[in-house]
Amino acid sequence: MTLFDALDLLGVTACAISGALSAMNRKFDLFGIFIIAFVTAIGGGTVRDVLIGQTPVSWMQSTLTIYLIGCVTTLSIIFRNKLYYLKKSLFLFDSIGLGVFTIIGVEAGIRTGLDPIFCISLGAITGCFGGVIRDILCNEIPVIFRKEIYAMVSILGGICFLVLNAFHVKANIIYIATVLLIISIRLLVVTYKVSLPLFTVKNNKES
Amino acid sequence: MTLFDALDLLGVTACAISGALSAMNRKFDLFGIFIIAFVTAIGGGTVRDVLIGQTPVSWMQSTLTIYLIGCVTTLSIIFRNKLYYLKKSLFLFDSIGLGVFTIIGVEAGIRTGLDPIFCISLGAITGCFGGVIRDILCNEIPVIFRKEIYAMVSILGGICFLVLNAFHVKANIIYIATVLLIISIRLLVVTYKVSLPLFTVKNNKES
Amino acid sequence: MTLFDALDLLGVTACAISGALSAMNRKFDLFGIFIIAFVTAIGGGTVRDVLIGQTPVSWMQSTLTIYLIGCVTTLSIIFRNKLYYLKKSLFLFDSIGLGVFTIIGVEAGIRTGLDPIFCISLGAITGCFGGVIRDILCNEIPVIFRKEIYAMVSILGGICFLVLNAFHVKANIIYIATVLLIISIRLLVVTYKVSLPLFTVKNNKES
Repeated sequence: MTLFDALDLLGVTACAISGALSAMNRKFDLFGIFIIAFVTAIGGGTVRDVLIGQTPVSWMQSTLTIYLIGCVTTLSIIFRNKLYYLKKSLFLFDSIGLGVFTIIGVEAGIRTGLDPIFCISLGAITGCFGGVIRDILCNEIPVIFRKEIYAMVSILGGICFLVLNAFHVKANIIYIATVLLIISIRLLVVTYKVSLPLFTVKNNKES
Repeated sequence: MTLFDALDLLGVTACAISGALSAMNRKFDLFGIFIIAFVTAIGGGTVRDVLIGQTPVSWMQSTLTIYLIGCVTTLSIIFRNKLYYLKKSLFLFDSIGLGVFTIIGVEAGIRTGLDPIFCISLGAITGCFGGVIRDILCNEIPVIFRKEIYAMVSILGGICFLVLNAFHVKANIIYIATVLLIISIRLLVVTYKVSLPLFTVKNNKES
Repeated sequence: MTLFDALDLLGVTACAISGALSAMNRKFDLFGIFIIAFVTAIGGGTVRDVLIGQTPVSWMQSTLTIYLIGCVTTLSIIFRNKLYYLKKSLFLFDSIGLGVFTIIGVEAGIRTGLDPIFCISLGAITGCFGGVIRDILCNEIPVIFRKEIYAMVSILGGICFLVLNAFHVKANIIYIATVLLIISIRLLVVTYKVSLPLFTVKNNKES
């Protein structure tokens, strides 16, 4: 197993825990918890694969991911009242996940021969759409549209990846640099409570 | 037409009626009723086809399904105040539909050469996602995440299918056994009001 | 650039503005505004491409669309308090967009060799699903299910297209006729406040 695969599994783990917590907070039943954990972990990659036509989608290529999500979700349910103490580790895992998913998405775009702007888009889709689908299934406005600059961090990571790639930096170094950049920016954002500006319309009449 | 095709059409009919009823309960207009009926009947199969890359999706392969849904929905609108008396038949149709859709999904997975766990997943996706998309379009939390063990029944049916298939049982017998199993479990579940456990989190602070 | 491409860009422009306005009305942050504008403009085409398996989806084939949406959205944010005065132009743009998207969808169906009823469906999906996805992301019941006969107009346009096409009318004339028909019907609908009938159920007990 390469460094990259290990990071990927860490990301899947973080997303599955965050999904399971969301579902338990909304009083979903046992099956609902597993589905939301699963969708949060693989939703972004699924949307990416469907958009570029890489099917069967990637989580169907190996059983490792699905069993990992199953175990992580089971453990999350058992230790649901202790997870609060892991909050900082979870934030770290989650940032690693965002970084790794961004990289996987950008690489998929490069492999498909797409324009750089679409590679960056695919990185952000892979990184963020698991959470978007989770929020839609939970019948909420996706949180990334309202207060997180999650997606913006992923886009900056994607740009960093493409720039380093253009200079033919070695793959492993690009991976680490991108993930570190994403973790650092997220830490900065949370520490200094940075948020994107809001714009509201005065004449609030919809056409 | 084979026994299997007949069962399929019965399933589509049940889903279309259930979709039309949902839409009328939510005061959708004429077009909305048709769309929700249609999406409930073919949504699960569409998601399955898109995930495994079998496109154009299956409901575009033959016009029979779309005309059947159109007729069923028209009749549902005309007899909307009588449908209540059909409640028991509808429950039966719906269970047949769940069974048949599960079988179609599992078979699609086998044909694509996927691992058994993904075949079972595709069975459950085909059986349940029509209802999930219906609930999302109606802006509700999908009911299968909260009180129905619909999906669990579909998964048990999928396992039964794969086990019988591994013993080289004849296709028609597998179909009937799986559908009968699914109908029986659903009847048991409804009769004894079985439901999956809920797990709630004490420290209800979202990260 | 052909007349058709010019009309397409006008349609994309109208959808992006309508998406950006929706997002600003819901107090989404900067990123959310861009995403909603983008999804409204390209969502319908994306669903169509995924259903017929034409991937990578069409907005990834050329960078023109994505940059146009970026510019339009930026301008919409800057002039957000003036857009109200453009209401009539926006309605016109939006109708042109509906017409052009309908044509593109129907043509994609013909190219894929589908039955006419599916070509018409693809036209309506291309024309309407951008708005459906926008409403789902904004956590609302899609407006087309409740008070607009948007979709019905698109279906009539699709039928007009197919009839003219069957008589081997020249492509450019078909385009103009279809778009004009769609604009006229929408104007009539809005002027005379036509709406589709509602059907409600007396025994309002869900099974």
